[in-house]
Amino acid sequence: MKAVGIVVEYNPFHNGHLYHVQQTRKKTNADCVIAVMSSSFTQRGEPAIVPKWERARMALAGGVDLVVELPYSFAVQTADRFAYGAVSILDALFCEQLCFGSEHGNIETFMKTAQRLVEKKEQHDEKVKQYMRKGISYAKAYALALYDMSHDTLDVSQPNNILGLHYVKAIIEQRSHMIPETIQRTVAHYHDTALPIHASIASATSIRRALQFDHDDVARYVPHTTYDTLQTYRKTYTTWHDWETYFPLLKYRLLTMEIDDIRQIAEVEEGIEHRLKKAIVHATSFHDFLSVVKTKRYTWTRLQRICTHILTNVTKKEMAKAHENKGATYVRLLAMNETGRAYLQAVKKQMTLPLVTNVKQMRHDAIYHIEKKATQAYVSILPEPLWTEALQREYKTPPLR
Amino acid sequence: MKAVGIVVEYNPFHNGHLYHVQQTRKKTNADCVIAVMSSSFTQRGEPAIVPKWERARMALAGGVDLVVELPYSFAVQTADRFAYGAVSILDALFCEQLCFGSEHGNIETFMKTAQRLVEKKEQHDEKVKQYMRKGISYAKAYALALYDMSHDTLDVSQPNNILGLHYVKAIIEQRSHMIPETIQRTVAHYHDTALPIHASIASATSIRRALQFDHDDVARYVPHTTYDTLQTYRKTYTTWHDWETYFPLLKYRLLTMEIDDIRQIAEVEEGIEHRLKKAIVHATSFHDFLSVVKTKRYTWTRLQRICTHILTNVTKKEMAKAHENKGATYVRLLAMNETGRAYLQAVKKQMTLPLVTNVKQMRHDAIYHIEKKATQAYVSILPEPLWTEALQREYKTPPLR
Repeated sequence: MKAVGIVVEYNPFHNGHLYHVQQTRKKTNADCVIAVMSSSFTQRGEPAIVPKWERARMALAGGVDLVVELPYSFAVQTADRFAYGAVSILDALFCEQLCFGSEHGNIETFMKTAQRLVEKKEQHDEKVKQYMRKGISYAKAYALALYDMSHDTLDVSQPNNILGLHYVKAIIEQRSHMIPETIQRTVAHYHDTALPIHASIASATSIRRALQFDHDDVARYVPHTTYDTLQTYRKTYTTWHDWETYFPLLKYRLLTMEIDDIRQIAEVEEGIEHRLKKAIVHATSFHDFLSVVKTKRYTWTRLQRICTHILTNVTKKEMAKAHENKGATYVRLLAMNETGRAYLQAVKKQMTLPLVTNVKQMRHDAIYHIEKKATQAYVSILPEPLWTEALQREYKTPPLR
Repeated sequence: MKAVGIVVEYNPFHNGHLYHVQQTRKKTNADCVIAVMSSSFTQRGEPAIVPKWERARMALAGGVDLVVELPYSFAVQTADRFAYGAVSILDALFCEQLCFGSEHGNIETFMKTAQRLVEKKEQHDEKVKQYMRKGISYAKAYALALYDMSHDTLDVSQPNNILGLHYVKAIIEQRSHMIPETIQRTVAHYHDTALPIHASIASATSIRRALQFDHDDVARYVPHTTYDTLQTYRKTYTTWHDWETYFPLLKYRLLTMEIDDIRQIAEVEEGIEHRLKKAIVHATSFHDFLSVVKTKRYTWTRLQRICTHILTNVTKKEMAKAHENKGATYVRLLAMNETGRAYLQAVKKQMTLPLVTNVKQMRHDAIYHIEKKATQAYVSILPEPLWTEALQREYKTPPLR
């Protein structure tokens, strides 16, 4: 059996994702599509709109054969660590290929650029530092430094190009046997906020907005399983998971934290703790809060990740410990269909990382330690007794089928 | 002008408190009655049902001439520290007498017992330790050790007797010139939970219960200013301040805290952090939670104080710093009438502690540092924009008149 890996967030799973899964299978001719999916929080530092179990169910219904978890310590990170973690998991599962969507659409360019980045690492790092000293953000400095090194390169200001580049780079760095492949994205830009009128593919951002403000029906843009799962979740749990809902917890937390405590939190650097502490006193919403704290250097995404780390109380020290090994230390199974199950049967004896279905066995693992805290913060907005039940779900949910 | 000091919580101010103020004035013949009042949280480790400003207004209407704050670092403490802080503040205001209500009612017994405790401190301390080693609570050990030293003594299992004893002891220890005085309490036991049918005096506990469960009218048991203030508060702020309302914040906090973090919190000792961490996962209410954690050694009151310190994030280290000076480092004015104002005019030049109306000047003070955190946690249950407004109140409210 031949497997292809994809890296996803499915926040939520929509028609564009469906197309991507279908194209991936077609392009790679794989028997088994394996998705590694961000758990409770996403790479941009947002709570996923519904829990990983609901999102894994959507993935299965959308044609994915196997869904495994991308732990918080990789998921809520800059693109390089995000990609590194995802590649380490797909590689551990013996995927032969990794297929990602990109704005660019040509894998040769990705490979050439990634190769150059690996070879000229010091030179690129130095240029990034130079740009950052001028007060601009890491992402922008990264792109500028890359452009300086070679003008005929990838446009890494495009979100899926930069992620793709990091997947390919991680494959090279980890000496993985996976062959990278890309599918060109045609419609629905990543950051679009409005639903398109004449199409059935919309960005996840615009779908989440429509859900949050309850003013549009999203049925047209998502498979019916997604639609049903979202409706049922909302009805049962009474809320979506979005930053505004978590804002009271974040505000309470920031108000009672000492400056020194904030400084211990992952990704907090260069005095941002003072800006956070000062702004929170007057902020009545998450959006207001970030608008006040934002600068050229601190992008919205980076600030959202910092806020996520404050909410989950994940420290620099814990994060460093989780990254001692660089890659993943286990593979956690969230969902599988018959094909996925058969594939696992075939490969699990050769796997060098433990395949985990009962997380209790992982309680001494640094990556899982962070994952657990993230889950506990994630469910903290639910009303009782749903909150307490949701806490149990983390431990008691068997892989979905 | 002659002043008498009283130590109060007014949670909320009721007819029994009114009677106490009147009797205090009568018995001591004082011109000015000064109340030192717990700020946002009480000695038993509960959030005060309404903020200090509302409770100070009730006190003025009830005949108190001057209301000053008993800071959190003294208020949310065992009886000895509570009394020590209160006495240091009343002494700084040159009260000639201190008058407390007690079950016993005879000041001679208090003075004799306190004197013996001061003289035989080591002996008593040693006996307390012996009893505690048997696994019983500090309060019970304290009472047993006292009984061992002299059988003809005060019944310190009565809550107002033990507080009174500590006031008198603190007066002796601080070499204060204040003369202690006591008024016998006749009706309404401290811990009564039901409102009495044929009386107009009820315990504060029973009044709070009636308010929280909305099933009884409390008008009969409180002065009309209390009644109006409570009604207005509830209407404006949509909630009372009680533990069940804070429970989601406490639960979120405990879930995302590390065992080591909990160990840093004030009053956390002897492994209780493990019990707390374990029990919180399954607890759907504050009452359930404490019922599971409670043991013979850890009394309900002590656990409530620990939970308060977790909620406010007050550490052992911060608490130790606040107590370096033993007594108060400032006197914060909450409310005064004409008599109170005239009294302050007469004494303020002789005062050795700063008289504070603008707390911004106290921002480097260790006691105020804790007070500020407590206020920030206290307002964290309010809906926006009331929450943000309430945060400002801490800094902007001038002393009430």
